[in-house]
Amino acid sequence: MSFSVSEFCQRAKAASLQLARLTEAEKNAALEAIAQGIEEQQASILAANALDMAAGREKGLDDAMLDRLLLTPERLLKLAAAVRQVAALPDPVGQIRDLTTRPNGIQVGRMRIPLGVIAMIYEARPNVTADAGALCLKSGNAVILRGGREALHSSLAIAAVMQQALRQQGIDPAAISVVPDPDRDLLLQLLQQKQYIDLVIPRGGEGLIHFVSDHSKIPVIQHYKGICHLYVDKDADLDKALALLLNGKTQRPGVCNALETLLVHQQIAEHFLPKAAAALAAQQVDVFACAQSLGFFAAAQLADAQQFDTEYLRLALSVKTVPDYAAAIMHIQRHSSGHTEVICTQDYSTAQRFIRDINSAVVMVNASSRFSDGGELGLGAEIGISTSKLHAYGPMGLESLTTEKYLVLGDGQVRS
Amino acid sequence: MSFSVSEFCQRAKAASLQLARLTEAEKNAALEAIAQGIEEQQASILAANALDMAAGREKGLDDAMLDRLLLTPERLLKLAAAVRQVAALPDPVGQIRDLTTRPNGIQVGRMRIPLGVIAMIYEARPNVTADAGALCLKSGNAVILRGGREALHSSLAIAAVMQQALRQQGIDPAAISVVPDPDRDLLLQLLQQKQYIDLVIPRGGEGLIHFVSDHSKIPVIQHYKGICHLYVDKDADLDKALALLLNGKTQRPGVCNALETLLVHQQIAEHFLPKAAAALAAQQVDVFACAQSLGFFAAAQLADAQQFDTEYLRLALSVKTVPDYAAAIMHIQRHSSGHTEVICTQDYSTAQRFIRDINSAVVMVNASSRFSDGGELGLGAEIGISTSKLHAYGPMGLESLTTEKYLVLGDGQVRS
Repeated sequence: MSFSVSEFCQRAKAASLQLARLTEAEKNAALEAIAQGIEEQQASILAANALDMAAGREKGLDDAMLDRLLLTPERLLKLAAAVRQVAALPDPVGQIRDLTTRPNGIQVGRMRIPLGVIAMIYEARPNVTADAGALCLKSGNAVILRGGREALHSSLAIAAVMQQALRQQGIDPAAISVVPDPDRDLLLQLLQQKQYIDLVIPRGGEGLIHFVSDHSKIPVIQHYKGICHLYVDKDADLDKALALLLNGKTQRPGVCNALETLLVHQQIAEHFLPKAAAALAAQQVDVFACAQSLGFFAAAQLADAQQFDTEYLRLALSVKTVPDYAAAIMHIQRHSSGHTEVICTQDYSTAQRFIRDINSAVVMVNASSRFSDGGELGLGAEIGISTSKLHAYGPMGLESLTTEKYLVLGDGQVRS
Repeated sequence: MSFSVSEFCQRAKAASLQLARLTEAEKNAALEAIAQGIEEQQASILAANALDMAAGREKGLDDAMLDRLLLTPERLLKLAAAVRQVAALPDPVGQIRDLTTRPNGIQVGRMRIPLGVIAMIYEARPNVTADAGALCLKSGNAVILRGGREALHSSLAIAAVMQQALRQQGIDPAAISVVPDPDRDLLLQLLQQKQYIDLVIPRGGEGLIHFVSDHSKIPVIQHYKGICHLYVDKDADLDKALALLLNGKTQRPGVCNALETLLVHQQIAEHFLPKAAAALAAQQVDVFACAQSLGFFAAAQLADAQQFDTEYLRLALSVKTVPDYAAAIMHIQRHSSGHTEVICTQDYSTAQRFIRDINSAVVMVNASSRFSDGGELGLGAEIGISTSKLHAYGPMGLESLTTEKYLVLGDGQVRS
């Protein structure tokens, strides 16, 4: 019997209607059952993961990919703990805000509701299956999980455990379902099912996100790259600036909220850049500097035209000296990927201007770009990051998986 | 010299950066200058409108279309007044909510910002040019207006007045620009400019919206149709129910928030349907009824399979008797267009269930569907209605033209 994408999606849609009506207590009970299931059924998940690992080794996946693919008893306990953390987050669904009374006596407010059905498209990280499943369940959404071929056995095993827990709790197991075949044609079909799917969230490299965006008839959360800037103003506290620079670039260089570009006001360049040069050299950071900055670095290369649009994802940094604040803003507006920008300044008015002038998803004053993360910003958990402004912008938590309807409470009023 | 869509959009994008930084006072001054311009330069706008009217008559446009196209001195005064009403609305931009302090001392909040550049695609209503221009300006967005060929002279004349007012106020006139050529190929090019345009809002018939959605690389606000339901529960106050039915169906039948379907609980059908039948007959409403309801109407036709998916936009109504509350919900979930649904009931628990069970954009208890409108719901003005859940859902006011960025205020904190 062949697999029907549209029937698969239709079942998820039907489940979403039940999910939208569950109380928070019912959803939390299901999440606890899922966490217990992951703990108790480690053997079946690890056996499935061993199949994926063997195939991965045979296929010649590199060590980093194999490590992302690997599940261990310890990692499964962490996964179960993460599911319990999602259960502990407040449920956004059902919140009513701004319930006000109109002149004719009708009450009008906004009530938060689930989106419906979310499709997650991701690569070879089996933990996304549990994480995304838990976040969608807590926010009352059905989820269709389409992971990479490399993690398929693991994902199906985790989903089987989750579905068993849903069944135990009287919830339609189609609420969390894994596409059982990672065929690309089926993915293309999936991206056409706009009558059943409300939102597509791709998680992975730029290629995956472009592929999904280009082919989807459904709205897609877009997050291509993070070219995060630190602008060290003439009125910066240079010790703070140095700490922000090092933390932003070196604490974890391979992630999207790491710094890629340092902009320095020319008035403090001769004070700051020598310190920065020494500290960056000590951390083996490759520097690509503008002509004006180059002389401060012992081993920097001259930045070429592409440098300021490059997301290094490694210990490398672009450096530019700017004549004034306005030039820094213009540089950021031209080269920003809309992710995170930081100003380091002690001047009140300059800080206020920056907050208004820069409209990236996260705008910071005197704080490390590495805080640009759902957990650090207090969302509790993160299902993705959006660098396009529609629907969600920046790190996405539970609220980003919901929308608001209007609620009107009357007593028989009609329009005249 | 040929017209370049991408340069046109690039200019709007550049203007959007200036607009995003304007204070509310500066935007209000520009709106007042626009309103005065419309009042003082009536002659040039009316002369341009006369060209459109003459061409429309020659082309054989029907009376309704010609009426929508027509501008008069009185209509221009109303247009200027509408611009002043937009100026009087509170500015959502710059609002900061939920600024809380994290354990490490950084403050994290959300700050409302403009979307950037909005493209409005509409048909032959020249007033949309001024309305949409004013709403986008107030919310700090640049707008690209692409109206129908029939209203082109009028739209360009109105835009010229608006741009002159912007220039007077030191604002880049590209903040409000009309595509000078309604060629369909240029529209297709416009819908590809995702590096410059953040949101597309089509206003018009279902054909226009499908065309725009199918061809756009940019997110599109979708509003296909309004199949609004009134469910008269067994515990309804039948006088209220009758008032809601008549107001919903007959007060203005040609609009999307008019009722298309009446669902009646079978327990009160024999009490309610005879009254409904008499009242509907008195208003010359054509009734398409299910087999069980049919006998209560003197002149109804039996509803066929398509009837319950039809947006009549005229004095016609589908009627169905349902065995219980659950059947009403199932019917609505199956046939709803996601616009507006109303329950009429005096039972507290049933009202509470309905509020949770139905997730259309507007959910009402004991109020007329005709209130489903930005003005009636207190938004002040409406730029469109969304029946898809992403970004905006239901009537869209100024807030729907904005998004929120994260704001992080630190004192040198780094991540450990």
